[in-house]
Amino acid sequence: MKTPAEIVQGLMLANDAFSQLLGMEIKALDLGYCQLSCSVTAQTTNGFGIAHGGLCYSLADSALAFASNSRGHQCMSIDTQIAHLAKVKLGDTLTATCTEIHRGKRTGVYEVRIENQDHKLVAFFKGTVFVSDQIW
Amino acid sequence: MKTPAEIVQGLMLANDAFSQLLGMEIKALDLGYCQLSCSVTAQTTNGFGIAHGGLCYSLADSALAFASNSRGHQCMSIDTQIAHLAKVKLGDTLTATCTEIHRGKRTGVYEVRIENQDHKLVAFFKGTVFVSDQIW
Amino acid sequence: MKTPAEIVQGLMLANDAFSQLLGMEIKALDLGYCQLSCSVTAQTTNGFGIAHGGLCYSLADSALAFASNSRGHQCMSIDTQIAHLAKVKLGDTLTATCTEIHRGKRTGVYEVRIENQDHKLVAFFKGTVFVSDQIW
Amino acid sequence: MKTPAEIVQGLMLANDAFSQLLGMEIKALDLGYCQLSCSVTAQTTNGFGIAHGGLCYSLADSALAFASNSRGHQCMSIDTQIAHLAKVKLGDTLTATCTEIHRGKRTGVYEVRIENQDHKLVAFFKGTVFVSDQIW
Repeated sequence: MKTPAEIVQGLMLANDAFSQLLGMEIKALDLGYCQLSCSVTAQTTNGFGIAHGGLCYSLADSALAFASNSRGHQCMSIDTQIAHLAKVKLGDTLTATCTEIHRGKRTGVYEVRIENQDHKLVAFFKGTVFVSDQIW
Repeated sequence: MKTPAEIVQGLMLANDAFSQLLGMEIKALDLGYCQLSCSVTAQTTNGFGIAHGGLCYSLADSALAFASNSRGHQCMSIDTQIAHLAKVKLGDTLTATCTEIHRGKRTGVYEVRIENQDHKLVAFFKGTVFVSDQIW
Repeated sequence: MKTPAEIVQGLMLANDAFSQLLGMEIKALDLGYCQLSCSVTAQTTNGFGIAHGGLCYSLADSALAFASNSRGHQCMSIDTQIAHLAKVKLGDTLTATCTEIHRGKRTGVYEVRIENQDHKLVAFFKGTVFVSDQIW
Repeated sequence: MKTPAEIVQGLMLANDAFSQLLGMEIKALDLGYCQLSCSVTAQTTNGFGIAHGGLCYSLADSALAFASNSRGHQCMSIDTQIAHLAKVKLGDTLTATCTEIHRGKRTGVYEVRIENQDHKLVAFFKGTVFVSDQIW
């Protein structure tokens, strides 16, 4: 059985071009748990001059993938929701913390809280994954 | 009152670095309606070698922003959900079609269907926006 | 293989005490499709004197169950969302129309639109079900 | 300014026929916080012989309404999601705990965790409310 770091850092993030493009870094990792951060650059703002909603979503979705796959079975996101709570500005550093709400045989449910550098909650995400039979 | 094209093409997409980075192009635009497309490149895949979930979300979220802002009032996404229905592969071309479900004084609800080049539905998105008093 | 009517009317609704309590009636039924209605009574209002949000949700959730189970495999709701769009008043008659967005081997995605007697959209629901191996 | 108990117990639950019909009882209440319970009766089961999904939703939606309105401004549910995580059986006692994730000027976001009598998490709910100018 591979460790969470072998799966997530070695097999997932190392091959994950989009997460790398957005500058995501793993801050903490455990079974069913992941903390992931990135910064808002001039490439990731939208027409309002603030971070595109897709940046927070992508950060949360990667955190979900890493936390849910860390247990050894390959998991695929089925259904996800994100509430955007506060403006995210150019230069902000975001930290997404993904925790496991429920882990069943076939599905898992996770929440992700995204905070900025001032510990202000800027987005709240919930995701359901399908747990496959495929082992990493 | 500005036209949808003046608002969306001229003021939003023209300044939207992230949508440009992902190669989004407006295919159709009307009051409360937007069709937006992009392709999956080597930059937007994840550790499974398929498109990162954040790509579909970002495409849908931009389509939501464009469709909801086209009516003249500035709208901000409050709460969004996306179901990932089929794998999206490197080289696929995605088209997101955003339609208006409901438009009230303070909130609007939109759905976005994302199809690939074979007209297979790959993601289904629903978003609620806050309609502000601010005019474009 | 049982027909949609045998499954939904004969085995599901006939034993579904809560849907009966709320006065739900099947208006139309087909593979992956269901139209279901009920009225708002004095029993189903809340402290604002309008229909409790749980009434619309319950109607949509039953419509989801009926549409998804009609294909013969037992399906269980995994994740659902509902947007409440307009006030639902005492005496209103609600009609929920559930259509299939996606049906895979393991999951299905459905949307439900709930209208009142004036054909005004009052709620919009999306649900994901798990498709089990169990046959009705 | 009215207290949470005056608003929730005195003005909301006292007039909330549906929450009463389902046997909901307030276990704890504070600003932005509510704990609410009910039991599964023969009236609230579905065709699978387990609790109808609408029961958990209704309990969570009432908890959301009570927690969000407790601060004095009238709040209306805009968009809600519920994941059903484990079967809820006839005779089970459910306790919903609603906590505040975010409270802005115009919107609030809350989560609700529903556990059974064995402290097993059976449903996870997230809701966004619109905060009106209307004072209780």
